[in-house]
Amino acid sequence: MKKVAVVGATGYTGVELLRLLVNHPQIRVSQVTSRENAGTRVDAMFPNLRGFLDLDFTAPEVEQLADNDLVFFATPNGVAMKSTPALLAAGVKVIDLAADFRIKNIEVWEKWYEMKHACPDLVAEAVYGLPELNRAEIAKARLIANPGCYPTAVTLGLVPLIEQGLVDLDIIADTKSGASGAGRKASVAHLLCESADSFKAYGVSGHRHQPEIAQTLTNLAGKAVDLTFVPHLLPMIRGIHATLYADLTANTESAASIQALYEARYQAEAFVDVMPPKSHPETRSVRGANTCRIAIHQPQGGKRLVVLSVIDNLVKGAAGQAVQNMNLMFGYPETTGLLSPGLLP
Amino acid sequence: MKKVAVVGATGYTGVELLRLLVNHPQIRVSQVTSRENAGTRVDAMFPNLRGFLDLDFTAPEVEQLADNDLVFFATPNGVAMKSTPALLAAGVKVIDLAADFRIKNIEVWEKWYEMKHACPDLVAEAVYGLPELNRAEIAKARLIANPGCYPTAVTLGLVPLIEQGLVDLDIIADTKSGASGAGRKASVAHLLCESADSFKAYGVSGHRHQPEIAQTLTNLAGKAVDLTFVPHLLPMIRGIHATLYADLTANTESAASIQALYEARYQAEAFVDVMPPKSHPETRSVRGANTCRIAIHQPQGGKRLVVLSVIDNLVKGAAGQAVQNMNLMFGYPETTGLLSPGLLP
Amino acid sequence: MKKVAVVGATGYTGVELLRLLVNHPQIRVSQVTSRENAGTRVDAMFPNLRGFLDLDFTAPEVEQLADNDLVFFATPNGVAMKSTPALLAAGVKVIDLAADFRIKNIEVWEKWYEMKHACPDLVAEAVYGLPELNRAEIAKARLIANPGCYPTAVTLGLVPLIEQGLVDLDIIADTKSGASGAGRKASVAHLLCESADSFKAYGVSGHRHQPEIAQTLTNLAGKAVDLTFVPHLLPMIRGIHATLYADLTANTESAASIQALYEARYQAEAFVDVMPPKSHPETRSVRGANTCRIAIHQPQGGKRLVVLSVIDNLVKGAAGQAVQNMNLMFGYPETTGLLSPGLLP
Amino acid sequence: MKKVAVVGATGYTGVELLRLLVNHPQIRVSQVTSRENAGTRVDAMFPNLRGFLDLDFTAPEVEQLADNDLVFFATPNGVAMKSTPALLAAGVKVIDLAADFRIKNIEVWEKWYEMKHACPDLVAEAVYGLPELNRAEIAKARLIANPGCYPTAVTLGLVPLIEQGLVDLDIIADTKSGASGAGRKASVAHLLCESADSFKAYGVSGHRHQPEIAQTLTNLAGKAVDLTFVPHLLPMIRGIHATLYADLTANTESAASIQALYEARYQAEAFVDVMPPKSHPETRSVRGANTCRIAIHQPQGGKRLVVLSVIDNLVKGAAGQAVQNMNLMFGYPETTGLLSPGLLP
Repeated sequence: MKKVAVVGATGYTGVELLRLLVNHPQIRVSQVTSRENAGTRVDAMFPNLRGFLDLDFTAPEVEQLADNDLVFFATPNGVAMKSTPALLAAGVKVIDLAADFRIKNIEVWEKWYEMKHACPDLVAEAVYGLPELNRAEIAKARLIANPGCYPTAVTLGLVPLIEQGLVDLDIIADTKSGASGAGRKASVAHLLCESADSFKAYGVSGHRHQPEIAQTLTNLAGKAVDLTFVPHLLPMIRGIHATLYADLTANTESAASIQALYEARYQAEAFVDVMPPKSHPETRSVRGANTCRIAIHQPQGGKRLVVLSVIDNLVKGAAGQAVQNMNLMFGYPETTGLLSPGLLP
Repeated sequence: MKKVAVVGATGYTGVELLRLLVNHPQIRVSQVTSRENAGTRVDAMFPNLRGFLDLDFTAPEVEQLADNDLVFFATPNGVAMKSTPALLAAGVKVIDLAADFRIKNIEVWEKWYEMKHACPDLVAEAVYGLPELNRAEIAKARLIANPGCYPTAVTLGLVPLIEQGLVDLDIIADTKSGASGAGRKASVAHLLCESADSFKAYGVSGHRHQPEIAQTLTNLAGKAVDLTFVPHLLPMIRGIHATLYADLTANTESAASIQALYEARYQAEAFVDVMPPKSHPETRSVRGANTCRIAIHQPQGGKRLVVLSVIDNLVKGAAGQAVQNMNLMFGYPETTGLLSPGLLP
Repeated sequence: MKKVAVVGATGYTGVELLRLLVNHPQIRVSQVTSRENAGTRVDAMFPNLRGFLDLDFTAPEVEQLADNDLVFFATPNGVAMKSTPALLAAGVKVIDLAADFRIKNIEVWEKWYEMKHACPDLVAEAVYGLPELNRAEIAKARLIANPGCYPTAVTLGLVPLIEQGLVDLDIIADTKSGASGAGRKASVAHLLCESADSFKAYGVSGHRHQPEIAQTLTNLAGKAVDLTFVPHLLPMIRGIHATLYADLTANTESAASIQALYEARYQAEAFVDVMPPKSHPETRSVRGANTCRIAIHQPQGGKRLVVLSVIDNLVKGAAGQAVQNMNLMFGYPETTGLLSPGLLP
Repeated sequence: MKKVAVVGATGYTGVELLRLLVNHPQIRVSQVTSRENAGTRVDAMFPNLRGFLDLDFTAPEVEQLADNDLVFFATPNGVAMKSTPALLAAGVKVIDLAADFRIKNIEVWEKWYEMKHACPDLVAEAVYGLPELNRAEIAKARLIANPGCYPTAVTLGLVPLIEQGLVDLDIIADTKSGASGAGRKASVAHLLCESADSFKAYGVSGHRHQPEIAQTLTNLAGKAVDLTFVPHLLPMIRGIHATLYADLTANTESAASIQALYEARYQAEAFVDVMPPKSHPETRSVRGANTCRIAIHQPQGGKRLVVLSVIDNLVKGAAGQAVQNMNLMFGYPETTGLLSPGLLP
């Protein structure tokens, strides 16, 4: 039994983390922090937790946080980096669900996140928490940069092709996300009346997840990947769908061999499901589940591949993946507390 | 051709008013105000108006507003009452879409709206802008209190019964509204992720529209009406559905005679549609339309009547009714600019 | 470890039952039937089950079904009654999620369900599977009539008042359900384009759940309950919200004492949650959970109580309650496989 | 005043056509047909039309249809081609909102629509009803093939680039449509519970609109256009969003010059709105309106253009465009009956 704390649990990744942790057989949540809501019950804000979590929000103090085996940061960007050095020094493991430790190039990070990094040295140490790529390093790590939601869906959809060097490195990711990706904060733009029953692209001229994905793919390819990344906002709560366009370098691969490649690459992965050829994965099939579901198409039989990849942005794209990383760090079976089917319908 | 201004047009009733006014053949919108957005184009905030309205937001100044035939206030409660005396004095007509002039009892108003009234004397003069009840007074008025959205749906659903004294005056109004009733302001509670795909009651212990409805019904009945009013929030944008429960005083009325009563009462009304017996009006049938659609049921043949009444809260419940009132005040045909079918599907 | 079969698992209660059963530690699903889909994989129809259930649909044959400890019928009304006698004779327990065994008065049943009952004798034996009322009988039963979704929400919301004889027996239940209550069958009326972004009542003049609820309440009260039951269709997938209106017989009960009564009545119940006074339960707080969440209001301090009751119609209103009943019948802890928080947001 | 009939008006394009026609100042709808619903009132099926259209559905008989100036076919594919020869022979103009006359190559048409064409000779005569490309021919035509919804959004988004020969002819159209594109027919796949709150691609391996778009672009380019067309289903009713990826052939064009090109190309078009640089058009901004709204992006300043194009699939993508074509054919001002802002929110 390990003790964990969740810092900044008033957002959607926070409440989702709590939903998963209260059912985890090896974990006790000792502390849930929110400076603003200190003193109020957590389940007054999130009534789905009534009966599952008997805690008040507390103010985040490093001394108390240090009395845990692991601390999750479900905070806005720029918060985790301030307390992480002290926590690591105190022997506490850290998983940051925000972006503070995701991008190795500090200059790039500071440009996109528009702040000075508080502990650039730790960025080098941090392990990018995508178990399907970095399982061994995660198991040994004390600091995890939990991947972004779009990056998880896009990267898992492309890994087999990039690892095998089968496609041109000029790739398009047309991605669509439910509104929970925008977080739980007062805003006009994400009111139901603004974003329901409508659809739009956003950030077409530049989005923070582009350099994050490009970094991973470039590392994997061994040379620069040119990624066009276009996100869109779906009129729904949960779910990301990535439609990925990549061109086969040689026209010698058959659809069947690409399918076989994906199946082989992910055969041992509990949370990546390669669907039968010509499938169309639905985001609802992974609602609430820690699964990435992938299908491969080769329209008109040509060199252009279309890969479809879906996740629940709050689970495999955030809280579920964080628990998966935690399991690895604690030496628990990787699937502990994470095996349940999506909620369909 | 008359000149009108819309004060505070950054909310949903404001943009809906503009949508209706730009197509009104006798009206020119001369000014659209928003202190906060002065200098920016109206259609930059509301791109549906691109090509229809070539104006910037301006700051609301009484001198400029006075250069209109009529001014609409689509502002939060408590704003209209501050400028209305000066505008009336300048000979300008005023329609307030907020609640400043709706409740005749100043004490009651001040209790529910939690502020001091700025011009209680004008409250007495103001005409409650429900044309189906007060057509003649509206035509002569210089100041209109445009009814609330719930009050419009509930009142029109009950008028024939109350006028004829057919029911006990202990009435239940179980009402449901789309999220646009909550307005266009930054808030967590009305984010898509908070209010989509869910349903709840709110304000069950007390809601401002209860005294407004009770005042109208009590006037009509000539004695106190005891109204239980329970509002709910629908996971959709537009539409109000009122389910009204009233018990026949004598059990002598047949379902057919009640149906006939409603049809007779509203036969001459362009914007109230009594559906055939046992119908179930859908809110979508009035989406974007200035129509109230009503159906009457007598389940199990007993003394209890169930009346169903639907409107689009932004049209017959706000902007459309305001234009209807304006037409009456200017002596135009009442339906001018308001005759178009709902958007279905 | 017990073996169970699910008959007719191509609907929403069926897939929800499978979602719960594949995670139940004491249960093995041996067979899933659908005459029409025999031979195709269950997870081809319901991809959320990929990796959790390695079965094809089979045709429902009594001999094979008899090789189970318990059979669930997630079939249309009128199917379970045909096979139940043979299964009971073979020593197999049966839970019918449809309405075949819910109504004791065969005449009433045959009127509402418009067919002849195939085994009226078994109706008398069947236990109405609402554990909060009939726990002991359920534990001993071999045949369970699993309650309807509306009846579960309405009945649990009224039990404490009826048991204590505190209210007049003229009660209004204004109820609202997500579209999954209408089932998974081809129809125009429940297309997304027909029922999204809109709201309406239906069946106001009469609905099958009215006699079911009235039967339970009448039994509890010891005299006839006059129930006005008005259902509405919500533009969302899951969730029922019942708004219940009942008048205190004597005006001597305080709001606090009613609240205390509810808390006492349900204190030992794992799946009924009485919220703090003046709460507004949201359906999303029970999404995917086997919980009924209740709040009590006394608007304007009068004799009229307003009780709010929410459930997930597919869980506490169907599949979850069926598993709860199964746990009781097998002597397992009642909460086995059912303890997880709702999916919020 | 001209007389028109609508054949097959029980679908979504049919009711939308009626919504537009009842408000058209120069048109009288004389007949609305549906073999299956003959004898029932049109407004019983579509209550938004109550008060606007006093007609019953009739069976479609050519003799009666011939007593009109123009007949719209809002029928499934393959219906219009059967009656069109007789109507044209009788001097009646025809607009087919389905696909019977869209594809000039009969073999290609028969492959995609899986039936034999009934009047291949008329296909050659039919004019593709995209006024922004074929205005003069439409004005003189007696038979119009009204474009598909996706083709309208995609083609208008690409016309300026293709006409000027600025991009490689290997183009990707990642498109998303509301569910009304699937029509109003009983099906499981388009139930609210199947398609709400979820997102998926469909037809990735091949879709009928691909050859339609490719035909138009190839004609425009003067050489073969290689189009990858991937459609997706949005959890909402109306709206299409096309995200178009095209690479500049020479890297000499600046973003500003592309923007200027689009503005110049569409300056005189009433129904195509080029938004300011870096805009993100929302589908809701054209809800109910006959407008195509376009924005151009050049992410990362490179050779890749991303063009965003939105329409209401039922208006500019179907019924509105049909009325626009009718206006041209009758010599009315092109915008008659079509000038109203989108319904936002």
